[in-house]
Amino acid sequence: MINKLIAKIQKTHAPIVVGLDPMMNYIPEFIQKKAFEEYGETLEGAAEAIWQYNKGIIDATCDLIPAVKPQIAMYEQFGIEGLKAYKKTIDYCHEKDLVVIGDIKRGDIGSTSAAYAVGHLGKVQVGTKSYAGFDEDFATVNPYLGSDGVKPFIDVCKEEKKGLFILVKTSNPSSGEFQDRQIDGRPLYELVGEKVAQWGEEHMGDTYSYIGAVVGATYPEMGKVLRKLMPKTFILVPGYGAQGGKGADLVHFFNEDGLGAIVNSSRGIIAAYKQEKYARYGEANYADASRQAVLDMIEDIDGALQNR
Amino acid sequence: MINKLIAKIQKTHAPIVVGLDPMMNYIPEFIQKKAFEEYGETLEGAAEAIWQYNKGIIDATCDLIPAVKPQIAMYEQFGIEGLKAYKKTIDYCHEKDLVVIGDIKRGDIGSTSAAYAVGHLGKVQVGTKSYAGFDEDFATVNPYLGSDGVKPFIDVCKEEKKGLFILVKTSNPSSGEFQDRQIDGRPLYELVGEKVAQWGEEHMGDTYSYIGAVVGATYPEMGKVLRKLMPKTFILVPGYGAQGGKGADLVHFFNEDGLGAIVNSSRGIIAAYKQEKYARYGEANYADASRQAVLDMIEDIDGALQNR
Repeated sequence: MINKLIAKIQKTHAPIVVGLDPMMNYIPEFIQKKAFEEYGETLEGAAEAIWQYNKGIIDATCDLIPAVKPQIAMYEQFGIEGLKAYKKTIDYCHEKDLVVIGDIKRGDIGSTSAAYAVGHLGKVQVGTKSYAGFDEDFATVNPYLGSDGVKPFIDVCKEEKKGLFILVKTSNPSSGEFQDRQIDGRPLYELVGEKVAQWGEEHMGDTYSYIGAVVGATYPEMGKVLRKLMPKTFILVPGYGAQGGKGADLVHFFNEDGLGAIVNSSRGIIAAYKQEKYARYGEANYADASRQAVLDMIEDIDGALQNR
Repeated sequence: MINKLIAKIQKTHAPIVVGLDPMMNYIPEFIQKKAFEEYGETLEGAAEAIWQYNKGIIDATCDLIPAVKPQIAMYEQFGIEGLKAYKKTIDYCHEKDLVVIGDIKRGDIGSTSAAYAVGHLGKVQVGTKSYAGFDEDFATVNPYLGSDGVKPFIDVCKEEKKGLFILVKTSNPSSGEFQDRQIDGRPLYELVGEKVAQWGEEHMGDTYSYIGAVVGATYPEMGKVLRKLMPKTFILVPGYGAQGGKGADLVHFFNEDGLGAIVNSSRGIIAAYKQEKYARYGEANYADASRQAVLDMIEDIDGALQNR
């Protein structure tokens, strides 16, 4: 799957991923109204609104981008109905041949991580049959429990030719509270990064490993160090745009080959129509605003890479 | 909710929690057969088998125990249908007046943690209405992202009078890989524990905080240190029985008042009928075997507490 992701990045010239993290207040009134008319102000109604909203964005951007990253929490907050919209979104993105990175940040003791891995990336056995529960192509994983919490994910990836992005340095303001603490003169995130690189070396695609890392756009200096520490690791970079990162800050997340990173934007793309910059599109054309925001983001990042 | 948990522990004399972590190979043949006859070898069939299996155990043990801890991964692996069984299990446990600890180990950047918190412990807004998605009483939380990943959970707990157990030192063999690393001469898990105690002090129930910690039974010496470091923190202790912990090892997780900890057993209770010790019950009476295993666990832990 890492080979497919890279091929698609090269084809689209877009090392970016659209974060499908729908919040009710992003969703245009007319979509909410229609969904509530059909299902009432219920969890089903919310799920329908989310799904229609996503579909519009996917349709408007799928030819420009290699991948999407739905954040499962934004669906899970609406319970079972929300998760149905999550699954529907994954399936629709696959129809459009997009790579789907499930931003699930799971991680537990071995047997439990195995269950998550099977449910999200693999197939679960039921009697003599087997089924894919959610069927993302990549998943994000939390490393706090150490190797035996990560290995079951790697095992399933090997079998299913899928991939992971393991949290190394997250984009949020307080990520340093534990991740930056010094251990033998080096921050914890470096030790985690080193571990990710080790796991990755044993699980290589053609040029990059299918065991990737998450490093926040909001910490470009740390990204620079981690890039060198994990040369064969693909880095998923959240925090572009709304969280503060800019294209010029991000060049050091990439290798000299112009690859090695994929930058996520969520709000900045999916709620673009709410920004002054794209206000001319209006709510009714929110998907066109998203398309334009994708084009602008590609230009920003591609431009920065060319001027590095 | 911490007050209710403590009251129930005092009433049952059972500082224990039953981990409802169903695996297909734990579920008696006759339950699987019936479910598959009705729904086929499908995800619905698996979910029905899980639910019937859980129901048997809950009915057989609910008068003895204060709480259950369903591990969401074991349901999530069966996709949407599995999660329906998770929700059904939560609702049924509430009918039986059990405290439900959702072992979800979520944790993300602020806005995302807020969505998880709302979905599992709070209520989500849909137009003018609000709904509880999963409605557990407590949730486990991963601290790797630091304060701003934890605070949204605390905020929802405050509003809803619910609680958390934050991972400090997990029970798995490789938990030390990052958690034990020395920072200024002290292991990371101690720093996390100190933080949990701080968060907890600001969010007190009558005698203990509703911000608890997870510390594995498999690390009793560390439990001893953490007990002192977090005097008002309730500790959820996984890893009893199948993972290796024993009653006598666990006394130091408790305070002098006999409170302050709740010990989880999953496999050891729910698949008791598979152990030689309870083989006499047979598959057909798997729930009676679970009841006896609960009684034995209470005796083991209560005995150890009385002999401390």
